[in-house]
Amino acid sequence: MSDPIQHLGLLCIDLQDAFLKAIPDRDTLIRRCGFSIEAAKLLGVSIAATEQLPEKLGATNAELAECWPENTPVFAKGAFSALEAEGLHRWIEVNPIDHLLLIGIEVPICIYQTAVQAMGDDLGVTLLSDCVSQRRSEDRAPVFQQLLAMEAHILPSETIFYSLMGSAEHPQFRDYTRLVKAAAV
Amino acid sequence: MSDPIQHLGLLCIDLQDAFLKAIPDRDTLIRRCGFSIEAAKLLGVSIAATEQLPEKLGATNAELAECWPENTPVFAKGAFSALEAEGLHRWIEVNPIDHLLLIGIEVPICIYQTAVQAMGDDLGVTLLSDCVSQRRSEDRAPVFQQLLAMEAHILPSETIFYSLMGSAEHPQFRDYTRLVKAAAV
Amino acid sequence: MSDPIQHLGLLCIDLQDAFLKAIPDRDTLIRRCGFSIEAAKLLGVSIAATEQLPEKLGATNAELAECWPENTPVFAKGAFSALEAEGLHRWIEVNPIDHLLLIGIEVPICIYQTAVQAMGDDLGVTLLSDCVSQRRSEDRAPVFQQLLAMEAHILPSETIFYSLMGSAEHPQFRDYTRLVKAAAV
Amino acid sequence: MSDPIQHLGLLCIDLQDAFLKAIPDRDTLIRRCGFSIEAAKLLGVSIAATEQLPEKLGATNAELAECWPENTPVFAKGAFSALEAEGLHRWIEVNPIDHLLLIGIEVPICIYQTAVQAMGDDLGVTLLSDCVSQRRSEDRAPVFQQLLAMEAHILPSETIFYSLMGSAEHPQFRDYTRLVKAAAV
Repeated sequence: MSDPIQHLGLLCIDLQDAFLKAIPDRDTLIRRCGFSIEAAKLLGVSIAATEQLPEKLGATNAELAECWPENTPVFAKGAFSALEAEGLHRWIEVNPIDHLLLIGIEVPICIYQTAVQAMGDDLGVTLLSDCVSQRRSEDRAPVFQQLLAMEAHILPSETIFYSLMGSAEHPQFRDYTRLVKAAAV
Repeated sequence: MSDPIQHLGLLCIDLQDAFLKAIPDRDTLIRRCGFSIEAAKLLGVSIAATEQLPEKLGATNAELAECWPENTPVFAKGAFSALEAEGLHRWIEVNPIDHLLLIGIEVPICIYQTAVQAMGDDLGVTLLSDCVSQRRSEDRAPVFQQLLAMEAHILPSETIFYSLMGSAEHPQFRDYTRLVKAAAV
Repeated sequence: MSDPIQHLGLLCIDLQDAFLKAIPDRDTLIRRCGFSIEAAKLLGVSIAATEQLPEKLGATNAELAECWPENTPVFAKGAFSALEAEGLHRWIEVNPIDHLLLIGIEVPICIYQTAVQAMGDDLGVTLLSDCVSQRRSEDRAPVFQQLLAMEAHILPSETIFYSLMGSAEHPQFRDYTRLVKAAAV
Repeated sequence: MSDPIQHLGLLCIDLQDAFLKAIPDRDTLIRRCGFSIEAAKLLGVSIAATEQLPEKLGATNAELAECWPENTPVFAKGAFSALEAEGLHRWIEVNPIDHLLLIGIEVPICIYQTAVQAMGDDLGVTLLSDCVSQRRSEDRAPVFQQLLAMEAHILPSETIFYSLMGSAEHPQFRDYTRLVKAAAV
């Protein structure tokens, strides 16, 4: 069996300050997204990002953009689904990726549309529950329920990264544990 | 593929003051329903309404009735399911509509019976989670769970309308954004 | 199509004071169970009750036992599943009943075991969400989730009774509305 | 039909003080786990435990280790899934066990990975909802939802043990009732 990590892609959706400022729990969201990006980097999971109309709305939050590797592709988009961003399909095909880990904002809009389109394209989808958010907290649960009914996965980031390591004897376990602790502060 | 908006119908159920006065979160409900009606109008989604025994219980809340287009059909009914209202089936056939977006009151009574009958008639059904309510808040979650198990969809209104637009480059995006902001006040 | 009301049976499980005294929301539970029993009686739904070891633990709460018709069968039992009570199967066969509406206590014990056994016997099962309770409130949601996954139905009592009437023009609607109002006090 | 109790195994995962000290509701968790271990012992359910790197992180909480029978096998492990612990598969085969009852910590890590691997091995899995916990309470619900979607069972410990007894006339009912009361203190 080939290494499952080679087929996962962490996709960071629209984590721009222009949107983050409207998210009630933005400080927690930024901390948890930072953790996921660092953990993905540590474990060799492919990472990409999208930005909604960046020429107008600005780039990804600087703290988060510093977490990902320098060569991380960042795709501009006007559509709400990340899969409409020019170049993103090529990132999926080249790596190649068959399962997307989604983080970012907003659950009822871009995350939802990305997940639905990805599943329609036969890609697996997992939302990292602690790394996705929205302006209107009451809109979160219905979208989660609906996506689960459509067979998307929704799991905490730690569940994914501990599963990828599998054991405390994994060579990166020590470094990973440091990330867990830093994100808990 | 034909335009999906032509096959959607927004059905406003029993938004009469006689019922609204018993709904604990009625001010929020009216604001969110107003948003959905305005957004449906902007995007060209067909709209209809029902009223429960209007000769006895009065008409739809004036603020909401002002939101919809003047030629919006309003169907009187005595049954709890909106699909029993005389004329409603014709509205569905003429447009033609194959998926209903339901807003209004009450989730455990008329919304539930309408959704069940519509699914039995092979119509798709989506409850707009922020635009449906009930007197007894503890009755909401069980009905939602049951309808999801029966394969109804339940999604926030924004999820639907952002999906219908698909992109910030949609010609109505600017106007739509104004509606989103007004409903957030 | 034959009258669906003739095939429903409302089964009141172990509503004895010895158990009720340990239920945190017992006053609400008694009021809601009283409503369901009265509504079932009004609409001609068959009613039966079970009592757990009544010779030792006493009879059903007097207020509730006064709600049901005088000839309501009450079955003593030692097993937790109501379907093990002697005579209950006969009540089901004679009426005949193909769908049970369950009210009473406790969700994680007797209600759960009754529902599982009933579904194993190819009976439909609906828990009336506002008419079932338990000592430990944290145990309620997991049992509800599990029973839904097993294809039990869980709905508020009003959802059931408004569905059985179907219309405000039902001959008993006026009397039913009085019950709704009295139970809301 | 053979006795179902002979095919159940209660598996206590990583209930070590080193992990418990980070669990917000640890006192309740210890009390509920103690109840489940005592009830399993009373009813003759097989019991085993795992410990994560015990030479480094110490043994199971002393109060809990005193609850289980002296000959209870305790398996050391470095992997997060309990099924990777050396000797555990043999415990499953020898008894033989076809359904695991899982208690312990943490839901999003070792409990999750154990459940997924067990289901992949065609073992039935039930998480005892009141006997599993985690550091981050917000991570609990998504894991529960995901495991339910994968057809794991999640039920309160009382639901399992009352189901195993089936009746108040079970010979151990009196002793079991004492355990229920002690755990409620």
